[in-house]
Amino acid sequence: MDYKQKSLEMHKKYHGKLEVKSKFPVTNKQELSIAYTPGVAAVSKLLANHPELVREYSFKHNTIAVVSDGSAVLGLGNIGPLGALPVMEGKAVLFKEFAGVDAVPLVLNTQDPDEIIAIVKSVAPTFAGINLEDISAPRCFYIEEKLKKELDIPVFHDDQHGTAIVVLAGLINALKLVNKRIENIKIVISGTGAAGVAIARLLKKFGAKNIIMVDSKGVVNNNREDLPDYKLQLLNTIGFVDNNIRTLAEALQGADVFIGVSVAGIVTEEMVKSMNKDAIVFAMANPVPEIMPELALHAGAAIVATGRSDYPNQINNVLAFPGIFRGAIDHGVSQITDDMKLRAAEALAALIKEPRKDYIIPDAFDKRVVKAVSATIQ
Amino acid sequence: MDYKQKSLEMHKKYHGKLEVKSKFPVTNKQELSIAYTPGVAAVSKLLANHPELVREYSFKHNTIAVVSDGSAVLGLGNIGPLGALPVMEGKAVLFKEFAGVDAVPLVLNTQDPDEIIAIVKSVAPTFAGINLEDISAPRCFYIEEKLKKELDIPVFHDDQHGTAIVVLAGLINALKLVNKRIENIKIVISGTGAAGVAIARLLKKFGAKNIIMVDSKGVVNNNREDLPDYKLQLLNTIGFVDNNIRTLAEALQGADVFIGVSVAGIVTEEMVKSMNKDAIVFAMANPVPEIMPELALHAGAAIVATGRSDYPNQINNVLAFPGIFRGAIDHGVSQITDDMKLRAAEALAALIKEPRKDYIIPDAFDKRVVKAVSATIQ
Repeated sequence: MDYKQKSLEMHKKYHGKLEVKSKFPVTNKQELSIAYTPGVAAVSKLLANHPELVREYSFKHNTIAVVSDGSAVLGLGNIGPLGALPVMEGKAVLFKEFAGVDAVPLVLNTQDPDEIIAIVKSVAPTFAGINLEDISAPRCFYIEEKLKKELDIPVFHDDQHGTAIVVLAGLINALKLVNKRIENIKIVISGTGAAGVAIARLLKKFGAKNIIMVDSKGVVNNNREDLPDYKLQLLNTIGFVDNNIRTLAEALQGADVFIGVSVAGIVTEEMVKSMNKDAIVFAMANPVPEIMPELALHAGAAIVATGRSDYPNQINNVLAFPGIFRGAIDHGVSQITDDMKLRAAEALAALIKEPRKDYIIPDAFDKRVVKAVSATIQ
Repeated sequence: MDYKQKSLEMHKKYHGKLEVKSKFPVTNKQELSIAYTPGVAAVSKLLANHPELVREYSFKHNTIAVVSDGSAVLGLGNIGPLGALPVMEGKAVLFKEFAGVDAVPLVLNTQDPDEIIAIVKSVAPTFAGINLEDISAPRCFYIEEKLKKELDIPVFHDDQHGTAIVVLAGLINALKLVNKRIENIKIVISGTGAAGVAIARLLKKFGAKNIIMVDSKGVVNNNREDLPDYKLQLLNTIGFVDNNIRTLAEALQGADVFIGVSVAGIVTEEMVKSMNKDAIVFAMANPVPEIMPELALHAGAAIVATGRSDYPNQINNVLAFPGIFRGAIDHGVSQITDDMKLRAAEALAALIKEPRKDYIIPDAFDKRVVKAVSATIQ
């Protein structure tokens, strides 16, 4: 099917994907007086005096904002707020359809990090949570960190943590299949944007000891003189750094795991062949992976995952974000902590009782997923 | 019925009044690929390159924001964003139920006018219009004016213009009944907040020549030394100013019309008796009017209107704002001009073919209202 054509047709036909509906009919003066004035004054007074009741008496109960500045939309780059709007609407659709969370897209016409922080802080009283989306690195790190500190509602940059959670879940089952332990393996991550950095951090938290990060200019280590601050910090976060190698090809020699959140086609069969026995390859560049699954398997990879729905083992954020916010709302959580992310990944992995090489991660439409993930967010 | 108790119960039962729904089901991988990635990338690309198509392909087509800082909520005063939230939700419900407009409440935790302007400008790409609500005077004038200048979508402060439109509509029919012309009458407006100022301005535009404004300290004229800038400007706007009177009682002597958007009980029977023959009294303080209708009629008023649904002639903003935004969206209008407001008032008045003293303004649930008003916004 030509999804692009279908998507264009569908968006034009429905004029977007979302509508705002009343849960309460207003068809006569009585109903009007209950939903609006004079009745609503009693609710307003109550909430002014008892702000702790706002979730019980308003749509803040179940409503989050999906916020983007359009600076890193899908694989399309910095296409601005209007280009981002259909994606944020889509995200809101998935929040509702998968987890019953009401989500409002908010696209912003500023890309100044401090302005974005100020705006999100200002609208925060309206919402039970903030899902940051498609904001470019390294700005996304600063924005999320600051908002997490200053707001009392959960703030979650899905490009970072949603991806990291699902990658870890898949990796847990993959390692089980090849009988390796996270502490002992060498992991190469290609891509040092939002996703790559968050994956490295979460794998570290999970016990990984040997992670090599690679960006478009090669291995991120102390021999590099072109590293921006956040990549230097990354070196500290990861801990172990190999200063003797420079290229992705060198990094992959003897590696147990390749995790790609980078660019189509940069991994060759040769490189996969140079990896350790029972190599695990997560080639998640979209729509074209770092190496096509057929080639990786042909080169000897034991397990391959991608971001695509037309291959087995799709690493799809939709396995995480709906349940994350469902759980945060249901359990009144004000922060999504690293421990919660680890538990969410483990819960996702545990849904598969007997992993197979072509089934290391649940299907996006597996009905058990949201419940399992949301139960871990408390 | 005890609307306050009912309203508390209803808000608690439903947890507020709004939900965000998908217009498009996502129950399998195909639908997911159309509503979200990879299909949605085509829509994002299109809108990034052709921003003029954003309304056709996204929920901006039919979605506005209802923005408040909670500084002047109903008659409750400055109760902040959480206290304002149920009212903004209610407003959004009415937008949908009366005119099919999708509306998103946004309550802000700042009351700094320039911050509010910056926030609204930032979120504007998401929306087809901005309804400002319950923002205190004089800040509301500055905020609206600035936003109107800087945004390409309609910005409408309902407390000002919604009220002014419906008041004018009622006044047109009332004057018809008593056979007086707007040019010849003396009008006294009590209240110089958002509503009072907007009413004065719109009546002036409609042809009124003699308007006296009264605030809590008496008649607004050049003898006052305590007037803030915006009230001094108001004197210029109105044009005619009588410097020989000081009190509401003095102002009402010989007046043809009293319009109250102020405080309960400040008009006495004596004052109404001192008005001109066939006096028109719009006593719209809520919930208790400036003078109760029974008393005003007993004192000789020919026509009485209030803000209440339990008396005839309810001056209710819901007669204006749904149709205003329905029209603005349908006709791609980027500004709600004074001419449009005048036409909207005339259209509302014209819905009543034969006005009666207890029927000068259509009922809130009159099905013809939204269509008549929206047709004037182009």
